[in-house]
Formats: sequence, C-alpha cells, structure tokens
Amino acid sequence: MDFNILHRSSECRARVGKIETPHGDFETPVFMPVGTQGSVKAVSPQDLDDANVRIILANTYHLYLRPGHKVIEQLGGLNQFMNWAGPILTDSGGFQVYSLSNLRTISEDGVKFRSHLDGSLHFIGPEEAMKIQKSLGGDIIMAFDECAPYPCDYKYVLNSVKLTSLWARRCLECNNGKGQSLFGIVQGGMYSDLREMSAKELVEMGFDGYALGGLSVGENRDTRLQIIKETTPFLPDEKPVYLMGVGAPVDLVEAVMSGIDMFDCVMPTRNARNGTLFTTKGRLTIKNARYVDDIKPIDENCQCYTCSNFSRAYLRHLFMSKEILAYRLNTIHNIYYYTHLMAEMKHAIKENRMGLFRQTFDKNQEQQNVE
Amino acid sequence: MDFNILHRSSECRARVGKIETPHGDFETPVFMPVGTQGSVKAVSPQDLDDANVRIILANTYHLYLRPGHKVIEQLGGLNQFMNWAGPILTDSGGFQVYSLSNLRTISEDGVKFRSHLDGSLHFIGPEEAMKIQKSLGGDIIMAFDECAPYPCDYKYVLNSVKLTSLWARRCLECNNGKGQSLFGIVQGGMYSDLREMSAKELVEMGFDGYALGGLSVGENRDTRLQIIKETTPFLPDEKPVYLMGVGAPVDLVEAVMSGIDMFDCVMPTRNARNGTLFTTKGRLTIKNARYVDDIKPIDENCQCYTCSNFSRAYLRHLFMSKEILAYRLNTIHNIYYYTHLMAEMKHAIKENRMGLFRQTFDKNQEQQNVE
Repeated sequence: MDFNILHRSSECRARVGKIETPHGDFETPVFMPVGTQGSVKAVSPQDLDDANVRIILANTYHLYLRPGHKVIEQLGGLNQFMNWAGPILTDSGGFQVYSLSNLRTISEDGVKFRSHLDGSLHFIGPEEAMKIQKSLGGDIIMAFDECAPYPCDYKYVLNSVKLTSLWARRCLECNNGKGQSLFGIVQGGMYSDLREMSAKELVEMGFDGYALGGLSVGENRDTRLQIIKETTPFLPDEKPVYLMGVGAPVDLVEAVMSGIDMFDCVMPTRNARNGTLFTTKGRLTIKNARYVDDIKPIDENCQCYTCSNFSRAYLRHLFMSKEILAYRLNTIHNIYYYTHLMAEMKHAIKENRMGLFRQTFDKNQEQQNVE
Repeated sequence: MDFNILHRSSECRARVGKIETPHGDFETPVFMPVGTQGSVKAVSPQDLDDANVRIILANTYHLYLRPGHKVIEQLGGLNQFMNWAGPILTDSGGFQVYSLSNLRTISEDGVKFRSHLDGSLHFIGPEEAMKIQKSLGGDIIMAFDECAPYPCDYKYVLNSVKLTSLWARRCLECNNGKGQSLFGIVQGGMYSDLREMSAKELVEMGFDGYALGGLSVGENRDTRLQIIKETTPFLPDEKPVYLMGVGAPVDLVEAVMSGIDMFDCVMPTRNARNGTLFTTKGRLTIKNARYVDDIKPIDENCQCYTCSNFSRAYLRHLFMSKEILAYRLNTIHNIYYYTHLMAEMKHAIKENRMGLFRQTFDKNQEQQNVE
C-alpha cells in the first residue's frame, strides 16, 4: 500500500491524500460504507460504484461465523464472492466480539466467545484474526484489539491498552505483508495520557496506518472530538489515519480538520432504512406527511440516482408501504451524500478554506424536515 | 391501442402479436410483473427494463387506498410517479376488494367495503373504478367485475356473470377511450356454459381486449386449463386475450397454446423473496446447503444481471443472512426467467414447434434443487 499526501491545509491538520492498493486507488479523506455480511445493506456493488464509493469495509466477525472465511477463500476471496472489484478493508473482529457475542472470556491468548447466531463456542486471538483476514483477502486489515467498554475506570483501560499493544505486536509478526496492509488500533478510552501511550507504543512497532478505536461508544461529542484532536499529533504524518465507527456528517467535518483520512460508519445506511435522509440543508424524515405530494427530489442539489429519478412523494409512498425499493433508493442517496461530502471537503482542503466550509456546513445542518 | 397478429401457430391457437400503446409497443405473448403498490417488489424500473420487461401491472385497489389516485394524478400519473416509461395495465380493483377488504357488501351499484389498512369505509362501483383508473393513467384498464368465490354454486356464479355484464356495460359507457384501452373480464367460475355466456355478452358489447378472470382461485390445474381451452374460442381472434393471475411457468406454456396473449402473476416475484428460483432445469431452493460453496450462477443458461455477476454461494449467503440485496437479485433473476420464457415461446410459435417446445419444457421442469 502506498500513501501519498497531495495537499496539506494551511489552516488545520486536514490533508488530501491518495492510497494505492492491489484493488485500485482512492483519494482521502474517504468514507467507507459498511458491508457487514459481505453486502452493504440494501445496495449492490454496482450501486456503490455509481455512488462514487471507492472502498468498502467488511466485518471479519460476521463473515467468520457465516458463511465462514474458508468458504470465502475457496471461492476466491471477498472481492470475488461479493463481486466488488475495488479495495476492501476488513476490521479485526474485535469490536463485534465485545459488542455482539455472548459469554466472552478475555485472556492474553485472545477471546473465547459464543456466536450471537447459534451459541456455538469460538476463539479468536491476534493470530486467528490475521488468518481469517488473510482468507477474506482485504487490501487493508486491522490488528486485533481490545475495545474497552464505556464508561470504564482508568485501571481497566490501562490494561486494555497494554493487551492491545501485546496483540498488535503478534499481529505484525503474523502478517507477511503480501498485498495486505496492516493498521494498528489506538485504544485508551477517554483518557488522554492512555491514548498517547497507546499511540506511541504502536508507532514504535511500525504499522502501515493507524486507527482510532473505542470511540462512538457512548461518550459525548465534545469528549470524542477532544480525544481525536489530542491523539492525531502522536501519529506519523506520512501514514493514513482512520477513525473507526464515526459518524455523523458534522463529526466527519471536525475529524477531517484534526487530520483523519478514513472513516466508516453504519449511519448513512442504517438511517436510510429508518427513513432519515441527509441533505445539504439538514435531515429529512421521509415519512413526514408534508411530503405526500411533494414532487421535488430529496435534495435539489444532489446528483444521485435516487434524486435524479424519484420524487419525495414516491419515496414517502414506498417507505409508508414498506416496499423493499424504499431501502435501496434511500441508501443510495445517503451513501452518495457521504461520498459527495468527502469530495467537497477535498476541494475545500485544496483551496485552504476548510474553516469557512465548516461554518457554512454547520449552519445548513441545523434544519430538520427540509422544505 | 392497436393489436396486430404477426404469426399464427400452425399447431394450436398460439399466436405472436404486437400491441401499440401511448407508452410504447410490446410483443405478445407477454408476461406483466405485478407492481401492486406502484413498485414491482424489490426491483427498480431500471431493473425491469434490464430484465426485458415491457409492460407492468399495477393494482387499482392498493393505489386508491394509498397514496390515493388523486395524489398520483396530481403528480402526473403512475408512469411519472414511479418513473416507469413503458406501458402499464391497471386492474379494476375488483379482485382485491373481494380478497383483501373487510365487511364488503355487493349491490347492483357496486361494492361497499372497509380498507384492509385502516378499516375506513369505501365504495367502488364501475363508474368509480373507471374514474380511479383514469387518474392513474394506465394504457390498458380493466372493467369492474365480480369475481365469484371458489368453490361456488351455479346460481351464485350465474348472478355474478349477470352483474359483471351489467357493470361491464357501465364501464364502457364511462370510458372516453382517450389513450386508455378497456378490457372486459370473462367470469363464470368453473361452469363451461356460464363462461360461454359471459364471453358472448362481453364480446357483443365490444371491448379492446378480453380477460379471463376468476381463475387461480383454488381450482385444480386440469380444471383451470380446461376452462381456458373452452373459453378462448368464444373470444374474437383479432383482440388480445389476457389470463389474469396465472401463473406457474408450465401453466403459461399451456395457456399460450390455448391462445392467451397476456399474463400477470405474483409467482416470480413472491417466489424470489421466498428463495425459490426458476431455472431451465427446474426449481432451485437457494437456502439448500448444497449451494454453500457453489460458484456456479443460478442457471448457467441465463443471461440476467444476477446470473452474470453472482454465484449460488453468494446468493445463498445473502438469503440466509436476510440481506435485502438477496430479494432484489432473486427477483431480477425470476423476472428475467419469465420474460425469457415468453421470448422462447415467441420463437417456437413463429417456427411452428410449440408442441415440441412444450414436451422438452415439461421434461426439464420436473427437477427440484438443480445440480
């Protein structure tokens, strides 16, 4: 993997970069839609491509349990399995083991847990996480980490940082680097000094990129943005930085200004399925009765497939009627909104006007149920 | 509407025809996917076009209740509302009033009923059915009929035929014919003489086309095929004949040989959502464990989008994981299977080999869970 910085903002830590992977290049800052079970919910790979998506995320935990990483490997890897030609990032499975599985026991070796699907017993440690991700064949893979709960006392988080570093080293030792780039995950909860400690330990080991994990777990927005702002300076400027699981459009704008290059979040896809649509003028709740005969598209400034072809009235009707097409059309729009937002930010960074961009953006985002 | 017969089979009553409508032409025999609520479930208008669909059916009853025909009229009609450029046939609402609504009371005026959505009270008679269908703006509209229950005694069906004729005349009187072609619906249950009577009464009134209604309501297959075979000879050769709500691929083949030109049925779309896929070698139940690592497409002889891009293994995984994409990809395949079957029949009719076609077809259809 190659990461080249094309432009640095003169106003803040934001930068425009380019990442080259075996499955193609993409520019940063980038948003990666979440394809939990080998499918970005409600859309096809073609829909993603049409919405300017250049890299997607897939969940190791889910694919390990079903259909199994060996099945995917046998069928030629995740790209071939799901017919997505572009880059893929797989997470390590760590976060899902903590948030979804039952009866987990953490030891230095790894985590014993029961499947949330059928209660079967499993074990994943750093070596297993690397093996599974190798089978899946993503371009970017993640070190196995421990994501501490929130809230959490200092002592627990300190141990979690130590364990994450121990596991990170074992992941590095497992990875032959052939085609797959390995990112380390900075933990440390909401403790600034532990974040610093985690970042420094990982940087010393030398990863292809660094992620901030353990955020968007229940903390308030100011705390989250503070931790991001404090931690990025400890990461090497010449490596990509990935903020895991965050988030709302306003958070993306702030995080980009703190130097974040990569994002993933279920927000655009999940909100789409719940009928909440992002627009340049704020959020739109499609089931609202005011849209019953509204011939306008979701967003008159949007060029997505949905806005180019369908009215709010029709989308409201589909949503109220629980038609499957509603979920696809809404998802296409929300994903396009995110990729377009990233594209707008790239322009703003290149033209050194991110401060002004944020001001205008924040003002527009206040509105609910767009006229 | 113009209907021209391009070729008549030398073996049977099958024919290849061409229907011209304000929204474009299509060849017959034709299959119309069902877009109950202004959406063919799980697919987009673009998907339909890509699967060679040339005309779709929409349900007057559903659209009348939600979002309301006046809303659709105000937004420019159903074509514009759902972004489908091709021909549309709307049913009269009759069948759904009998099968879905509560507390219906039938009189000579029409039917009083309660909405299956919210229990609200409504009335639809022939005049109302014509008005609603005018608002929706379909190219082909259907006369308001009474579909007798099954089984049903002779006296009830006789009255139902008389009422259907009475209403058919009133529909004819309402229809100004501007752009919308009106089809009469032959009733008569499973009584050959009542079918003959119904057909003759409608033909005397003079419709743009004729439909066989009240089939696929629980009768056995032989009875159904017998009624079709007996009734079509009473209909004018130069008008299109539409078999409502039927059905399975084997029934389509038989019905085409009896002179049917148009079909609709929820079978391809509903089966797709249940994971039952049609192939040239029989039906395939995608959740079957044998497909877990099967890299082949659903049908190696199929050129649809799904078969061109995705393996059985992936489709099985999507279906088992309840991913929304499963429903779309399965539906695209099943609809394509139906349009392709119609295309194959057109060739066979033109080459006067429908008998041989049926033989080969019946043999191939026996298999379940294709290798």
